[in-house]
Amino acid sequence: MTGRAEPPCTAARACRPLRADAKRNRARIVAAARLVFSEAGLDAPVSQVARRAGVGIATLLRRFPTRDELVAAAFEDKMAAYSRAIDEALADPDPWRGFRRYVETVCGMQAEDRGFTTVLTMTFPASPAFEADRDRSAAGFAELIRRAKAAGRLRKDFAHQDLVMILMANAGVVSASAGAAPSMWQRLVAYLLQAFDADAAAPLPKAPTRAETYHALLRAGRSERGAQPP
Amino acid sequence: MTGRAEPPCTAARACRPLRADAKRNRARIVAAARLVFSEAGLDAPVSQVARRAGVGIATLLRRFPTRDELVAAAFEDKMAAYSRAIDEALADPDPWRGFRRYVETVCGMQAEDRGFTTVLTMTFPASPAFEADRDRSAAGFAELIRRAKAAGRLRKDFAHQDLVMILMANAGVVSASAGAAPSMWQRLVAYLLQAFDADAAAPLPKAPTRAETYHALLRAGRSERGAQPP
Repeated sequence: MTGRAEPPCTAARACRPLRADAKRNRARIVAAARLVFSEAGLDAPVSQVARRAGVGIATLLRRFPTRDELVAAAFEDKMAAYSRAIDEALADPDPWRGFRRYVETVCGMQAEDRGFTTVLTMTFPASPAFEADRDRSAAGFAELIRRAKAAGRLRKDFAHQDLVMILMANAGVVSASAGAAPSMWQRLVAYLLQAFDADAAAPLPKAPTRAETYHALLRAGRSERGAQPP
Repeated sequence: MTGRAEPPCTAARACRPLRADAKRNRARIVAAARLVFSEAGLDAPVSQVARRAGVGIATLLRRFPTRDELVAAAFEDKMAAYSRAIDEALADPDPWRGFRRYVETVCGMQAEDRGFTTVLTMTFPASPAFEADRDRSAAGFAELIRRAKAAGRLRKDFAHQDLVMILMANAGVVSASAGAAPSMWQRLVAYLLQAFDADAAAPLPKAPTRAETYHALLRAGRSERGAQPP
């Protein structure tokens, strides 16, 4: 069997064990992809990733036949951390503390790597494991909201969609202030968490519908990724 | 005296009365500039403005020798509205209500026209009247904060710099959700205003310093305007 004949092996697909040099190549490509995507955005040419990794474009395409597979592999660790964050929040005996830590963690991940938030808005048909992780996180967050409300600490009118609002607001602060005032986002998040406290609750404008929020998220993801068709 | 010999006449500079056709040209150029800047950003070529206005580039440059003068003229009305907003807030016998209305008004102006927030970060040496309006607004906001705190309604640890944080967060939500979930920013602002209530106050991370905030603001303005030197 030659390397060329191997099926592409991505985060999402079980595959036969890689030879040692193939493993090394894969790791170098994924590391290069992380750097290139974070510097130049998710639409950076894959040829740039290959150059950075010091492999030929043919080698890269053998491992990652589509850009989405490469993106999913580059953000696999982050998505795993994102999943862990919701597991940890749900494991907290105090659901309100779990909720607050979760929001802080996710906003901190966004402050570290804005590309990651964009990844949350993308679909990855080639990476069902990646997609499953994300869906599980969304379901976990819904459960966390339920528990924090039941405990009487999260205000009753907090909507699942408000997480998207938080991430968009945080992205605005992070992208404008990073480097110049790097802790500004933490202050924003602290203010918002205090507003989410049941004790602070005063009437709010209606939340956008889930459909509106979903469209906003897709649009934001697309505009971050450039002018690609949906 | 020929039209060519007239000194450039901008918002900032007193100038001799314009002939009727020159007045019409100026109004058309300013209206075109508003459209072009809101569609294509503040770095759109002035030739595009001239084309849109249906005047020659020479006519445009006679009226507005520099881009900054054109930008200042295009946003003159908005800056006046911005100044009025702080005057109205200060005139409110209830300083906490004045404060809240002011934040809502400014965020609403940003939702309508994102270019305007960028203008707030620019310097206009050629338009001292424009700059004076902005400085007056900043001083008025400081006074509004003082009064709302003295009334016991605005939390004591609210910082002047937090207005910049609000505008950056609002810009993130507006740019991501406009069109798809156009009222999301109103929900964000409502949450934040509830967090600013003295009754909601719990400890916050330290605000960035004024210098940090100023640099963040300049950086954000520059990145919105493209890769121009400061």
